[in-house]
Amino acid sequence: MPVVDFWYEFASTYSYPAAMRIAALADQRGVCLNWRPFLLGPILAKRGMADSPFNIYAAKGRYMWSDLHRICARHGLPLRRPDPFPQNSVLAARAALALDDVSRPEFTRAVYAAEFGGGRPIAERATIAALLEAMGLDAGAVLERATSLAVKDGLRSETALAESLGLFGAPNLVTADGEIFWGNDRLEDGLDWAAGLAR
Amino acid sequence: MPVVDFWYEFASTYSYPAAMRIAALADQRGVCLNWRPFLLGPILAKRGMADSPFNIYAAKGRYMWSDLHRICARHGLPLRRPDPFPQNSVLAARAALALDDVSRPEFTRAVYAAEFGGGRPIAERATIAALLEAMGLDAGAVLERATSLAVKDGLRSETALAESLGLFGAPNLVTADGEIFWGNDRLEDGLDWAAGLAR
Repeated sequence: MPVVDFWYEFASTYSYPAAMRIAALADQRGVCLNWRPFLLGPILAKRGMADSPFNIYAAKGRYMWSDLHRICARHGLPLRRPDPFPQNSVLAARAALALDDVSRPEFTRAVYAAEFGGGRPIAERATIAALLEAMGLDAGAVLERATSLAVKDGLRSETALAESLGLFGAPNLVTADGEIFWGNDRLEDGLDWAAGLAR
Repeated sequence: MPVVDFWYEFASTYSYPAAMRIAALADQRGVCLNWRPFLLGPILAKRGMADSPFNIYAAKGRYMWSDLHRICARHGLPLRRPDPFPQNSVLAARAALALDDVSRPEFTRAVYAAEFGGGRPIAERATIAALLEAMGLDAGAVLERATSLAVKDGLRSETALAESLGLFGAPNLVTADGEIFWGNDRLEDGLDWAAGLAR
């Protein structure tokens, strides 16, 4: 079964519809997903951006929210802009990495649904804890692992790897032969490419 | 018949497949196109960018060329990177504006095919003249109009209007109700939206 790396950033707006849609699209094509949260902030900072490009460039930001509104409406996804935007995504990313490969997709969808579906503050420990508990997990134990040195270093390594692969936005699919597909609007193309590799 | 404004920039890579594809897609939906060349350079310059973002941000540039390669392959379009990239697009845009609404689409496709299909220098007067002549037009007369004050001012006005609409990239579709669809990958969505307005 072909494997595709799904690289996403919890603060990223277009990662929201991507995360909500991708499991079914991958299943349809017999493609296995590797869910890899990373941080865009350090990568953008090297380009001199201390904030989201959607805040720095007002026209780009206005367009993005209008485009995202259309996309969410088409897929029946609620959309509520979190305040502040972008949310600090470090704790969510660490918690996702602290989970195993079975729980990570469900937790990821829960975080995006809370953040962009409900406008909830995912930077807050209480929000993340509530999402973990709703999954029947021991929130205290997960959050302890999430803030361990191993997981902190793990997220740093993942972010460094993402940058070395040439990722500069989110979400992305990276196939086994190294093709990169950037954006919610390239999910189908990336999964089709990966499925083709298996033939 | 619903009308959609198709805003494009001759230096823009993603405008190439868009310009080659859009007429058939619009026909299928009974949508009428208004072909509007503009200049992105002055808009990007206000964001502090003196070059294409694809040159300034190497990772983004590498991705774009690889993505464009896949897109052109899918649509059976040849792709040859012009050198230098981006090409100065002022003369091509002025010549396009100097033509009437009937000749402009054909000339536009000829410019893109020469530039990104053939890697030819569209900044050069000889290239533009050859394309006009191949269309059976009087190249000297068109180029004289293209460099007239009226056309120069016209292109400046169009670019100012594009900026005031919130355009920050190319290509774009702008529908009669003011929705913006940015990118070759939003052509179908924008035309569907416009066709829906007619119902």
